[in-house]
Amino acid sequence: MTASPIQDESRLCVHSITTKPWTIEEAAKYYAREGVAGITVWQNALEGRDPKIVGRMLREEGLTVVSLCRGGFFPASDAKGRQKAIDDNRRIVEQAAALGAPLVVLVCGAVPKQPLSVSRQQIQDGIEAIRPEAEAAGVKLGIEPLHPMYADFRSAVNTLGQANTMAEQIGSPSVGVVVDVYHLWWDPDLESEIERCGWNRHLFAFHICDWRVPTEDLLTDRELMGQGCINVPEIRGWVESTGFNGFNEVEIFSTRYWGEDQLEFLRKIKRAYRSAS
Amino acid sequence: MTASPIQDESRLCVHSITTKPWTIEEAAKYYAREGVAGITVWQNALEGRDPKIVGRMLREEGLTVVSLCRGGFFPASDAKGRQKAIDDNRRIVEQAAALGAPLVVLVCGAVPKQPLSVSRQQIQDGIEAIRPEAEAAGVKLGIEPLHPMYADFRSAVNTLGQANTMAEQIGSPSVGVVVDVYHLWWDPDLESEIERCGWNRHLFAFHICDWRVPTEDLLTDRELMGQGCINVPEIRGWVESTGFNGFNEVEIFSTRYWGEDQLEFLRKIKRAYRSAS
Repeated sequence: MTASPIQDESRLCVHSITTKPWTIEEAAKYYAREGVAGITVWQNALEGRDPKIVGRMLREEGLTVVSLCRGGFFPASDAKGRQKAIDDNRRIVEQAAALGAPLVVLVCGAVPKQPLSVSRQQIQDGIEAIRPEAEAAGVKLGIEPLHPMYADFRSAVNTLGQANTMAEQIGSPSVGVVVDVYHLWWDPDLESEIERCGWNRHLFAFHICDWRVPTEDLLTDRELMGQGCINVPEIRGWVESTGFNGFNEVEIFSTRYWGEDQLEFLRKIKRAYRSAS
Repeated sequence: MTASPIQDESRLCVHSITTKPWTIEEAAKYYAREGVAGITVWQNALEGRDPKIVGRMLREEGLTVVSLCRGGFFPASDAKGRQKAIDDNRRIVEQAAALGAPLVVLVCGAVPKQPLSVSRQQIQDGIEAIRPEAEAAGVKLGIEPLHPMYADFRSAVNTLGQANTMAEQIGSPSVGVVVDVYHLWWDPDLESEIERCGWNRHLFAFHICDWRVPTEDLLTDRELMGQGCINVPEIRGWVESTGFNGFNEVEIFSTRYWGEDQLEFLRKIKRAYRSAS
């Protein structure tokens, strides 16, 4: 299935980290002024603020709060560390509820030298542990598989297949997956695994950006859609064919773009969204 | 199955690129002196030299020539480019035969923005095209899946599963796969895919090093075994349980180690080989 043509910004969401130099208040003002419909809030943007007040401010600007980034990081080498992670995630669920974010994106975590299979079990156990609080708060949990280059300490969940299996085993309508083209574009099973999300109705969010060629930094060298080698419209077509009709969330970490005028950058995002997403 | 204990250097092979500052003659002399049993020759080491003479020199030093790195890079955006790649690979097969290397390692290639599925087909077509020459020359071809962070322009083959499927479809005893822990350690299917190599007797080579935490460069920041987060002995156990009894090939690209005294570095490799491989 071909992706639906993008004709406006009604399904465009921008992650606050994408315009990192802006405060959340600045981001809210400019996103709204430029017609961006949704915002995903990163925790750094909430520092020293009451999430309830920030959520109200965002809605007053006309923005939809799409999700809170990020919970997770469940694995730890001892029980105390794992309990701390669970406690932290309970607070993040509360924070999401206060903000009015219907979803917490989970960057699952990993411990170097600890077998990945052990980290994966600790992730699943951690999600199970916070599930009751998330369900009670009406906040969903999205397992985001991260690119295999982050398997050392950021995430032991590196394919959509793994995330799907984990979500299915947990078996709650509150626990699903997040598809980010940056992490998953290379996967030969991506189309079929996205299709699998559809059967289970657990595709909760869709993140876009592009893979810069050549990439010079493992973390902060992402590109605008159309400037790299990812076929974003094709993947969006697969996502939409599951029935997904949520936001297309632009999440770009880029030292390069953070050094530019952020309003100019936001306008580039809008153009890239229309022409190459 | 646990890996067999490493008690000597009789199965230790070092890739010439690992000690890049050395000429091939220096590498030969010091590898032999330090008791390294095998060498995999990178093409840059052959520049301006007759591969026949280099091969003889290596054998006279007492080294086994394990393989030639590297052929491949089959995908191209036009037919002319693809034909050139096939011609280049025929020359590489000849070069391997002259050197006395029984194996050419294939870094398969990719073309940014070209669908990965198209690149994959071009890779398979390219291998099929050179297969008669390789078979006639008695040179095997090893498909090396590369880490997904190289899917932009270095390889559209990023998992051992893909490489296995390709080798099985080609169906020649001369075409198999190369397992490199750096590229594959994160893969949840790695153990079963290594096992699959065993059924088909097409596991041709085993490359070791480690994943530095944190990794600061996508290409030249590999670590000595034991210094990163890869469980090399566990993976070696899986490899050996297929019946593989070839060399353990140390392939480390590292600006950091290339800046050190190479003889000291070679001794570190030996220690890491005994203690953490």
